[in-house]
Amino acid sequence: MLSYSKGTGEYENWILAEEDFDLRYQNKCESIMALGNGYLGLRSSFEEPYVGQIRNMFVAGTYNKADVNEVTELPNAADVVEMQIYLNSELFSLTYGKILEYSRYLNLKDGELVREVLWESPKGLRYRLLFRRFVSLGDLHFIGIKVSITPIDEDAIVKIKTGINGKMTNSGVQHFKDGEKRVYEKEYLQLIQTTTESNIDFVINCCCSCYLENKMNRIFYIRKDFFLERRSIFGLYEFKAKKNLTINFEKFANVFTSRDKEYAEKYNLQEMRHDSLEHLKICSLSSYDELFEKSKSKWRQYWKDVEVRVESKNSVDQLALRFAQYHLLIMTPMHDERFSVGAKGLTGEGYKGHVFWDTELFILPYFQYNMPNIAGQLLKYRYLTLEGARKKAKQYGYEGAMYPWESAYTGEEETPEWAAINIITGEPTRVWSGIKEHHITADIAYAVWNYYLSTDDVDFLKKYGSEIIFECAWFWCSRAKWNSNKSRYEILDVIGPDEYTEHVDNNAYTNYMAHYVISIALRLYDLLPEIDREAFEFLDRKLNLKKRYDTYLDVYNKLYLPKPNENGIIPQDDTFLSKKQIDIDKYRNSEAKQSILLDYSRDQVVNMQVLKQADVVMLLYVLKNLFDKEVIEKNWKYYEARTIHDSSLSMAIHSIVATFFDDIQAAYECFKQASMIDMGQNPNSSDNGIHAASMGGIWLAAVIGFGGVFNNEGILELNPALPYEWEGLEFDIKLKLRKIHISIDRDKIEITSKDDGITDIMVYGEKYILEKRLVLPYRKESQQGCSPDVKAEDYLS
Amino acid sequence: MLSYSKGTGEYENWILAEEDFDLRYQNKCESIMALGNGYLGLRSSFEEPYVGQIRNMFVAGTYNKADVNEVTELPNAADVVEMQIYLNSELFSLTYGKILEYSRYLNLKDGELVREVLWESPKGLRYRLLFRRFVSLGDLHFIGIKVSITPIDEDAIVKIKTGINGKMTNSGVQHFKDGEKRVYEKEYLQLIQTTTESNIDFVINCCCSCYLENKMNRIFYIRKDFFLERRSIFGLYEFKAKKNLTINFEKFANVFTSRDKEYAEKYNLQEMRHDSLEHLKICSLSSYDELFEKSKSKWRQYWKDVEVRVESKNSVDQLALRFAQYHLLIMTPMHDERFSVGAKGLTGEGYKGHVFWDTELFILPYFQYNMPNIAGQLLKYRYLTLEGARKKAKQYGYEGAMYPWESAYTGEEETPEWAAINIITGEPTRVWSGIKEHHITADIAYAVWNYYLSTDDVDFLKKYGSEIIFECAWFWCSRAKWNSNKSRYEILDVIGPDEYTEHVDNNAYTNYMAHYVISIALRLYDLLPEIDREAFEFLDRKLNLKKRYDTYLDVYNKLYLPKPNENGIIPQDDTFLSKKQIDIDKYRNSEAKQSILLDYSRDQVVNMQVLKQADVVMLLYVLKNLFDKEVIEKNWKYYEARTIHDSSLSMAIHSIVATFFDDIQAAYECFKQASMIDMGQNPNSSDNGIHAASMGGIWLAAVIGFGGVFNNEGILELNPALPYEWEGLEFDIKLKLRKIHISIDRDKIEITSKDDGITDIMVYGEKYILEKRLVLPYRKESQQGCSPDVKAEDYLS
Repeated sequence: MLSYSKGTGEYENWILAEEDFDLRYQNKCESIMALGNGYLGLRSSFEEPYVGQIRNMFVAGTYNKADVNEVTELPNAADVVEMQIYLNSELFSLTYGKILEYSRYLNLKDGELVREVLWESPKGLRYRLLFRRFVSLGDLHFIGIKVSITPIDEDAIVKIKTGINGKMTNSGVQHFKDGEKRVYEKEYLQLIQTTTESNIDFVINCCCSCYLENKMNRIFYIRKDFFLERRSIFGLYEFKAKKNLTINFEKFANVFTSRDKEYAEKYNLQEMRHDSLEHLKICSLSSYDELFEKSKSKWRQYWKDVEVRVESKNSVDQLALRFAQYHLLIMTPMHDERFSVGAKGLTGEGYKGHVFWDTELFILPYFQYNMPNIAGQLLKYRYLTLEGARKKAKQYGYEGAMYPWESAYTGEEETPEWAAINIITGEPTRVWSGIKEHHITADIAYAVWNYYLSTDDVDFLKKYGSEIIFECAWFWCSRAKWNSNKSRYEILDVIGPDEYTEHVDNNAYTNYMAHYVISIALRLYDLLPEIDREAFEFLDRKLNLKKRYDTYLDVYNKLYLPKPNENGIIPQDDTFLSKKQIDIDKYRNSEAKQSILLDYSRDQVVNMQVLKQADVVMLLYVLKNLFDKEVIEKNWKYYEARTIHDSSLSMAIHSIVATFFDDIQAAYECFKQASMIDMGQNPNSSDNGIHAASMGGIWLAAVIGFGGVFNNEGILELNPALPYEWEGLEFDIKLKLRKIHISIDRDKIEITSKDDGITDIMVYGEKYILEKRLVLPYRKESQQGCSPDVKAEDYLS
Repeated sequence: MLSYSKGTGEYENWILAEEDFDLRYQNKCESIMALGNGYLGLRSSFEEPYVGQIRNMFVAGTYNKADVNEVTELPNAADVVEMQIYLNSELFSLTYGKILEYSRYLNLKDGELVREVLWESPKGLRYRLLFRRFVSLGDLHFIGIKVSITPIDEDAIVKIKTGINGKMTNSGVQHFKDGEKRVYEKEYLQLIQTTTESNIDFVINCCCSCYLENKMNRIFYIRKDFFLERRSIFGLYEFKAKKNLTINFEKFANVFTSRDKEYAEKYNLQEMRHDSLEHLKICSLSSYDELFEKSKSKWRQYWKDVEVRVESKNSVDQLALRFAQYHLLIMTPMHDERFSVGAKGLTGEGYKGHVFWDTELFILPYFQYNMPNIAGQLLKYRYLTLEGARKKAKQYGYEGAMYPWESAYTGEEETPEWAAINIITGEPTRVWSGIKEHHITADIAYAVWNYYLSTDDVDFLKKYGSEIIFECAWFWCSRAKWNSNKSRYEILDVIGPDEYTEHVDNNAYTNYMAHYVISIALRLYDLLPEIDREAFEFLDRKLNLKKRYDTYLDVYNKLYLPKPNENGIIPQDDTFLSKKQIDIDKYRNSEAKQSILLDYSRDQVVNMQVLKQADVVMLLYVLKNLFDKEVIEKNWKYYEARTIHDSSLSMAIHSIVATFFDDIQAAYECFKQASMIDMGQNPNSSDNGIHAASMGGIWLAAVIGFGGVFNNEGILELNPALPYEWEGLEFDIKLKLRKIHISIDRDKIEITSKDDGITDIMVYGEKYILEKRLVLPYRKESQQGCSPDVKAEDYLS
């Protein structure tokens, strides 16, 4: 069981804890309590090994393709965390002896994993153990571990075997060639491993030290031996711990790779070995506490920049938001625009570290509104992979840029071709997403445009964004097919966001988004020359924009956009509404993901009105301006009833869209479920990593949903509506270089900015101008969508 | 703790047991209780997983080289043993709940692994579980597992997740490309994997069934679902077990590979898939018990053929012999002469499945005297790899055939280049064996000749053996270096059997053996034309024998053979006797292997009078005729005092050589230690596999040592001498097509043969002729080496 209320005082709602040792939660906690800094991701496995553990350490962007039958993935680097601890010759393991006290927790505020154990060994001797661990936010390469041991009943001989274990695989797939292993100065262990295909060198170092109160009080080892095993190198450290005295054993490790930016241009392995060793030597002059303090101060700065405060009767809501924001930071390679965010961040092998539309639609807005430069960087990744997208378009006989459904380093398609078994035929199921799920090419252009609208980042638009938008729009022009019977363009044979339908024609989400992207291209065609004629001319020469123009316009004018039918329902695609309906309650309530596929084959599910996730509802979210409240409500209700929410991308969007038609309590129900996707009590929801998009979704649901923030073509609209459980909501957003603080409570909405300038703001449909501070009445009866019952001027300051 | 006395009645001294659950013994028992049939080797891991487990399944001869930095090795195939068993939703694991009864044992007589457990779950519910497992001796591809579950306190819902897990690696090295996975007929699971470099396809199938008393009473599953995971495929079987009723869950699996002999010539993967599936379907018509019965009858036949009976006050002696003979069978690829025996058999990753001199000097004699056709086959392996040996000779600038120190499929050198770390420099230690340990090229020719002498297998000699001998002898001619100062040939810069010295000149063992091989070549030069002139001429054309003759003769006459010095000690090499001596007691008594290398670097050890294993003593064993009893005794005593016995090849040879100078009790002490190398209580002696040579050594110590069997150039000499603890010793040997039964007790020696013919036999130096039965007096005071005190004629029948 997870506990959400461990934190008190300054740590209230900052601590995610596990208060009893329960191996059913092992993999989940490894994921949700993972540490990282965007460069390095380290699963929070226990120091001592347990059956079923999944130890993972990933370095962003270090993709490798192990074999022709495999797709490229983030390789699982050598493990530095495992320790075999012998206390008076008894192996420390919580499956033996008695656990007298136990608590493990992730401190979100400081970025530290802590475990406190009082253990009675099988022989009846008690030991207190305190484990602490962090991945430095200030020093991307650094991992610190501290184990404090206090024998309670007798003096103890402590033996710890630990080092660098390169036997790790990705579920049996070995990505590394064996490399050199060394001990330097009888102190520093070094292991080198090189990826088999991408030839990326990893240099991993570690060292251990042991002392009483502080590092001045070093302990003398009884023995210190080193062992070379296959693909691994270990030290065996033996020392004496006196009864009731605490001994601190510290292990420091670091990781450098030849993909690191500083080695991208001029690289020499020997130099990197030297650098990394020097780095560790310098670190080892400080103590864990000192190094941790530096990392902690970076975390405190982050929280100052991005904090969202929720006053809720369910205090877990606040924790959930912080949990999401914690992960949004550690998943994002802020140090390097050549990489983007994997669907599991850097917390597990799931989705192989690949980048999906999740980044642009679920994660990017968080950065756009909080750290816009990082948002720009994430979009630059799509610019850097544009060639891969062009290649894919060509391969499929299309033009422009066709972004891969799953993207890694080059932008080529990385989606695996086969997935789970078809229980009827006994054959593996084809994965069609890489081949047919095309909406991502619209999603990325949409994200670029929205980034521009909210940041006014003209430089990005002209250098990178425009080319993406023009090329994506051009893809859609080539993708659309003229239907001469109906005199319209159609988009046939796609998969929409709802992956439980495949090979459908005119998926509403896809068609609308494609249309939107072409519309942006047309606007940009006019806008770009005004901003920078030279940039336009350059792109015209490269892409033949003037020649393309008529085609853009033609497809824009004639692309089929499915309209609501007589019942007000927008058909998800041409055939969806005529498909069979079944009772899906069983699958909605199942703890197991995609449990419907145990009863039905994928081919059968495809022919039912069963949704994995928001599809039309997603459309209502991304292009809300196009639909009136009644249509939104009708469609939400129709589709939600048919949605299993087997995707972590579903609940948060349903929550937000429910606020559009003012069903705030339905929105809150969805929010609660979204916030529990990773942090909830289901012991297996996150085995292979957290759900990165869901982390973004939690923030979106709070700020975009209840906070009611909407960037309407560059104008900030605010329509806040708090659920009954919330007394207040407070957050910052950055808009066009201004940082705006929004504070909502049951009385008023307070909007302030310390930055100079003015901003047009629409609140509940009324236009205001924000200079420094604006206080408006809160619309009390939010669920009914009624208008403000207090006049605005009462509050104007 | 292991128990040696579990067997009673017909199983007395046939059962090797572990009577308490102790994970310190996990890896050891996986090795020593391993199952196999020479085609397939299966480590005896538990069904349920535990931390530290090493699951291994090997198929003989399927070597693969994973990467340029690695050497070729036997790849660890997909696991079919693991089962996750849930009893009323509680995961079965002996680290949880209470173990009320526990016994795990290997039944050597029947070739079955059994485990009986009475377990109380954490919730306090008791279950009786009986696990049985065998690898069929009759059907090389087949593995059977049977789990019988009896709920004691309540009815139980049983869930078992099991299938085929291709995530296995060799300590982190993945040897397989991912392949197809299928479920056929909602019953049969199939996984295909292909080695990365040698491109060997493995097809692995399994199926499960569940019934009450017998297969007619099938149980209906509550659910049966199949899951495809990365590199693995599983079934989840759920059924109800009534209180106090036993439910039998059977899992059958098989393995086929494209290296199998039947596919060697014409191979088609689809055909093999089909064959293997049909094979499993046919098996699944029978029950575990029926299939096991067939395998058991093969085991019974084996024991009838090879049994050695020891009447000892230490009944473990008898068990140890059976244990050795059990492993000698399962380690040997009797089905295919393209492979030989790995240094760990098929029981672990140690030594990577490579073939050493262990086979020819320690294992071959067992087969030579028991199953001579298998001995011939093992030598044929060396003939088939002769090209590799020629290649190596060439590579090093020598002529003839230079056999690899470690051999796999092609006969090329496969010794890894680097081993454990040098604690002084921090750098890995160079492994010199592959480069400098040349005596194997003498050992193989020696074995060929002895095989011929004991079998009269003229056909083998002329087709295969002669070429090996001539080429090995020729290697030694090119290897020997003329020392003009001393007017002699010398062999410089080698490693002898004692690997704690390196780069030595004129290692006694090496020089004497090289000399012996050249002497055989000279004899064969005369003999072969007599046997078959055409064969000789053919070889002459191929090898230029007539031209070589003078060189053979010259080196034979002038090769330096170190003689005993003034103290009667044969110098191990030119410098050994002048090296420093240290106290080695600490290392002799250490449970850890090669513990001296923790205190000294290899470079330091090389410069001490410290032996890893028999070297001069080995020479006394192989060429005993050359040395008189006094020299043998003096050298044994000198060298044994300086030997750590860090090699499993050491003790048995010391035991045998002690019988040469009639110190039978010293011999017995060595025998006891040899017999405990794998079977003893040291929990880590066999983690990476059993010691194949040691298994041969145990048999050699009994039959060659105490039994006193010596094949002196084709004449059987018998000098039996039993330790005080032994009342009788009885065994068969096959000699020149006759099977001879020898029974020794404290009164008499009885020699019988049922085969027609006569055999010359020397007993205690007196010559007899055996027709049918010969009874001679036993030399009672064996330790003093006195002559028979009863006249032979008293006993002649």
